[in-house]
Formats: sequence, C-alpha cells, structure tokens
Amino acid sequence: MTITTASMVSDHSAVAILAAAREMCEPALRESVGSLPEPLNRMAGYHFGWWDVAGMPTRVAAGKALRPALAICSSGACGGAPPAAVHAAVAVELIHNFSLVHDDLIDGDRTRRGRACVWTVWGTADAILLGDALHALAYGVLADRLPEPLVGAAILRLEAAALEMCRGQWEDCAFETRPPLGVDEYVQMALGKTGALMGCACALGALCAGADEATITAMDRFGRELGLAFQFADDLIGIWGDPAVTGKPAGNDLVRRKRSLPVAAALASGSAAAVELAQLYLSETPLTTADVARAAALIDAAGGRRSAQLHADQRVAAAIAALPDLSAAADLVALAHLSARRDR
Amino acid sequence: MTITTASMVSDHSAVAILAAAREMCEPALRESVGSLPEPLNRMAGYHFGWWDVAGMPTRVAAGKALRPALAICSSGACGGAPPAAVHAAVAVELIHNFSLVHDDLIDGDRTRRGRACVWTVWGTADAILLGDALHALAYGVLADRLPEPLVGAAILRLEAAALEMCRGQWEDCAFETRPPLGVDEYVQMALGKTGALMGCACALGALCAGADEATITAMDRFGRELGLAFQFADDLIGIWGDPAVTGKPAGNDLVRRKRSLPVAAALASGSAAAVELAQLYLSETPLTTADVARAAALIDAAGGRRSAQLHADQRVAAAIAALPDLSAAADLVALAHLSARRDR
Repeated sequence: MTITTASMVSDHSAVAILAAAREMCEPALRESVGSLPEPLNRMAGYHFGWWDVAGMPTRVAAGKALRPALAICSSGACGGAPPAAVHAAVAVELIHNFSLVHDDLIDGDRTRRGRACVWTVWGTADAILLGDALHALAYGVLADRLPEPLVGAAILRLEAAALEMCRGQWEDCAFETRPPLGVDEYVQMALGKTGALMGCACALGALCAGADEATITAMDRFGRELGLAFQFADDLIGIWGDPAVTGKPAGNDLVRRKRSLPVAAALASGSAAAVELAQLYLSETPLTTADVARAAALIDAAGGRRSAQLHADQRVAAAIAALPDLSAAADLVALAHLSARRDR
Repeated sequence: MTITTASMVSDHSAVAILAAAREMCEPALRESVGSLPEPLNRMAGYHFGWWDVAGMPTRVAAGKALRPALAICSSGACGGAPPAAVHAAVAVELIHNFSLVHDDLIDGDRTRRGRACVWTVWGTADAILLGDALHALAYGVLADRLPEPLVGAAILRLEAAALEMCRGQWEDCAFETRPPLGVDEYVQMALGKTGALMGCACALGALCAGADEATITAMDRFGRELGLAFQFADDLIGIWGDPAVTGKPAGNDLVRRKRSLPVAAALASGSAAAVELAQLYLSETPLTTADVARAAALIDAAGGRRSAQLHADQRVAAAIAALPDLSAAADLVALAHLSARRDR
C-alpha cells in the first residue's frame, strides 16, 4: 500500500510522499503541541513555523517531515493502513524537534530555516524547557494514542532512539576538540545522531501495522541506513549547498570547522591536497571566505566529496536491501533515494 | 503496611523511612543509570554522588530520596507490597534528577550538595544531554519494568508531571523579571515545580498497588499538598538555613533576590518593614552580607517567616486530610510532617 496515487509517481514522487505524510500528520501534531501549557505551546508553534514570535500566522518553509513520512510509509509497506501510524509519526517528529531545539542551543546555531532559533528569541532557559516539554510530550502521545498492547514496546523503542541521539550529539560535540579517528568513528556518531530516530520511525510504523518482530527489526535497519545516507548528503550540502536553497551561509560547515564525512575522508586520503587541507583546517585563525573556498576545493581534490557521495549511495543500497518485502515499498524506496541526493 | 519496623517509629522515623526506601530503590536506580551509554552513565553516577569526576568511589551525602519514599510508602498505604513500586520510584527519581541537572544550568547554580554541578564540571552541552538522557530513561524504566496493563497510565502521569515541572520552572524563571502578583501566583508556580512530581510519585505508588482511580487521584492530591509544604520549607531554609547543614551560603535565596514565599508574603503585608524591604530588595545594586542579614530581619518583622511556616503547616494538614485511608498511612504522615519541618 502506498500513500501516493499513481499520478504522483514521477520525478517528484518523493516530494509528493513527504507532502502527503505531512498533511496526514499535521492535525495530530498541532493538537498535541496545542495541549502544552502556555507559553510553551506558543514557542513550539513558532519553532514549527506555524506563527511568528508575536503569534501571528506565518507561511514559512516547513521542515521536510521525513521522519513522519518514514513512519507512515513503513506502516503502509507492512500492510497497515497509513493512518494507523499517525500518532507514532507525531511522537517521532516531537523527539526530532526536541533535539533540534536543544542542539541549536548546544551548537550555538542562531538560525534555522532562515528564522531565529528558539534560544535566540527566548533565551537559554526557555529553549531547554521547550525541548524538555516536547520530549515528554512524545512519550505522552504514544501512551495516550496507541493501542494498549503496543504502548510498552513503542515507548522502549522511542526511548532507546532518544538515548542514542544523546550519545550521538555528545560525540559530535566531542569531535570539535578530539576529531574522529577515521570514517568509521564518524559513521558511528551519525548512526546515533541521525540513524537511530529514522530507524525508530520505520520500526514504529511497522509496529503499528501489526508486523512481527523480525519485520520490525528489518524496518529499523532500513531506517538507520537511510538515516546515514541522509546525514552524508547533509554533510555535502554543508559544504557545497546553495545558500539560496539551504537558507544557510555557503560552506557553513567549513566556517565552523566541522569534522563531517567529506572532511574526514579527505584528511584520511594521504594526498597532497590532504596535507594542505590539514594545515588550513587545523590552524587556529578564523577562516576567510577565500580560505573556505580553498578548503572546499582541497576536500574535492582529496576525494572527500566523491567519497561522501559514494558512502551515501551505498547506504541507500543497504537500506533497500534491508527491506523485508519490496512489493509495497515503492514509497520507502523513493524516500531512500531522496535522502542521498538532494539539494536541501 | 509500612516499610519501617515498630522499633524505627521514633523521633527519627521519617529519616528511617527515607533510608529504607533509598536502600530498596538504589540497586534498580544504579542498574538503570548504568545502562546509559558512556560517558553519560559516568556523568550520571557523579551527579548521584556515587563517584567523583574521575570515577573513583565516593561517600558523599546522598539526596533525600523523598520522591522514591513517597512512591514506596504510597504503594504500602494502598495495600500493595512496597517493592511493587520500586520501578515507579526509580522513574520518578530519574525525572527529578533530570530536572535538577537542567535547572542547575538554567539557574546558574554552580554547586549542589557541596559539589560542583554537572554543567560546572562538563559544560552546558553535556549537562543538557545528560538531563535529556535521564528524562528518556525514566519512561523507559516504566515501559520496561511495569506490568503491561499499567504502562500507559503510568507514563501519562509521569509525562503530565514533567510538563507541569517545565511550566513551573518557566514561571520561576519569569519571576526574576516579573515578580509574582501575590502568594496565590507563587503557590501555582510551586505546584508545578515541586508539587506535580510528588503527587505523581504517590499516584504511581497507588497505581502499582492496584488501587482504583479515586484512590490514585486522592494520593496524587496528598503528594501535591506535601510538595507545597516541602517547597515552603525549602524557602525558609533558603533564607534562614544553617550553611553548615544545608551546604549552601547563608541567605542564599536573598543574595539571588529570589521571590520565594516568605519574600512574597512580607512584601504583601503593607507594613513599614515591607516598605524598607522593597527598597532594599528591588534596588539594582548587589546585596552585601549586611544587606542580606537586614533583608532577612525585615522579612521576619513583616511576618513573612511566620506566614511561610503557617502555609507549610496548612499544606501538611491538607495532605493528611486528602489521604483516603489512614490505617496504613503512618509512614506517609511522617513524611508529610518531615517535609514542612526540616533543617535541610
């Protein structure tokens, strides 16, 4: 079963799948978020792009809502009705957004999707408390809205994913002072930071469809592999993304000297470009615009760009190979391809 | 049913009840915390006082563990075996400690129980992530260890308490720039910040004992009233506590110009002392040691100290009145009295 009609299956099918899943989940998401106590509900609605700081309705670019789409499509692929996974999708989206609110603060990112972050508008305390509230709400949605026999298993999966994310974000922060020892260590971090929750989204979709344990485990694996592909594509965008499309400065990850996959792969190449990159990247002085452009060229010359795209494509293949049954998984396959090849 | 033996019921019975509950819960708490990914488990164990920053075993004064004791004793008072509530007690203690780790950061408190706070040792990012991990773990414990039919109801109660705590902490922070309008607004904040989780501890204890909904609701009410008494006693300690006993500087709340209950009550008294207190307390200049002593004397003269103790005693009476059945509630009554009359 798919949530797209035949006419939607085109070049833009993955975009249509995301839009359909977002439309299916948004009423439940708005209802949950609306139940938060004032003013946490108001800050949350700002974060989700529903209104501005003063509470006036806005039309801003929404998030991709990839995780809800994974839950919905996983339910469909496992023979469930897609709406069966709506509340699981909402819970996963709440966890994702709790982590965004906290991570923006931790990373010192002042903007998200071209708008001021919650902590930039309301300060550190409110950003911590809003993240905590969204975190709690996620478990509440599962406990309140899933069929009783599924509640315990669903919450254990969501909790495990949240813990992996905490650990992944911790490693990502640690890489600022103690760089990853190589590509493998970087992949381990990305699995926690990004893969775990995508795997959880797929597993919960399968759980809500009544799938057996082996299928749920396979769907978790699919989501984790897709999550890695997504993260690696994100790393490419962080260096070569078009600021007009991403809403972020050019070479944003380089300005911040992030040890993302293209950088780690380039530094590990042992080439002349790698030596020059190391000198530039590991110095203490702030990088100029010319330095950033030079670093990007060196990463490319050292094979970091090609390597990261190859890693992303390999993870997509691994994701699709993990699917227990391809007969109803066209939407999931489309989402996997989108994850590795995108411009924002 | 009580967890103390007859010989323990003495002047020190409440202390013995706390110690017995702590002993009953600590193995399960250590097991849960130990399951956290490295290095979050190490930071958590430091926070709980089990070892020092380097991981070497320490013997430091543990927290009071009042919330676990409330869960254990509530189970007993409702006819359950106290151990039935151990995992609920652990979950509540995890939520309490997640909020301590985040609130210490939010409030800028550098020490807790005479030791450096997590954020002081490991920084902002790690404190946020450790709090998040303890928060997730709390729901995981309930989902993993409670009998399946109780999981959903227990998680909804814990989630609701966590949300009330977020809102209460938000109000407490807001009072720094926009003081409470009076005693009622202060009580509302305290109900969220302190009462909600104590109510939840009691409700979960009753739930684990198989109590009916009316009894669970009554136990929640008991815990909330006790929580208010506890907070008001805390406010008294924050002004008149003995630094040698509390481990905090003398007049700690006054130095920070906190709008605690004695202050709010004193300012609302309309007395000459209130006028002088307002001039002193609402000025912009840092308070000297002499100012702090003078402020404490003015609060006392304006009736703020007497009023706060009266409020605490009234809440203890309301808590005991809320108990559905006094026949097995001796431990709970002892804990209620301890909450309102204590020196640390």
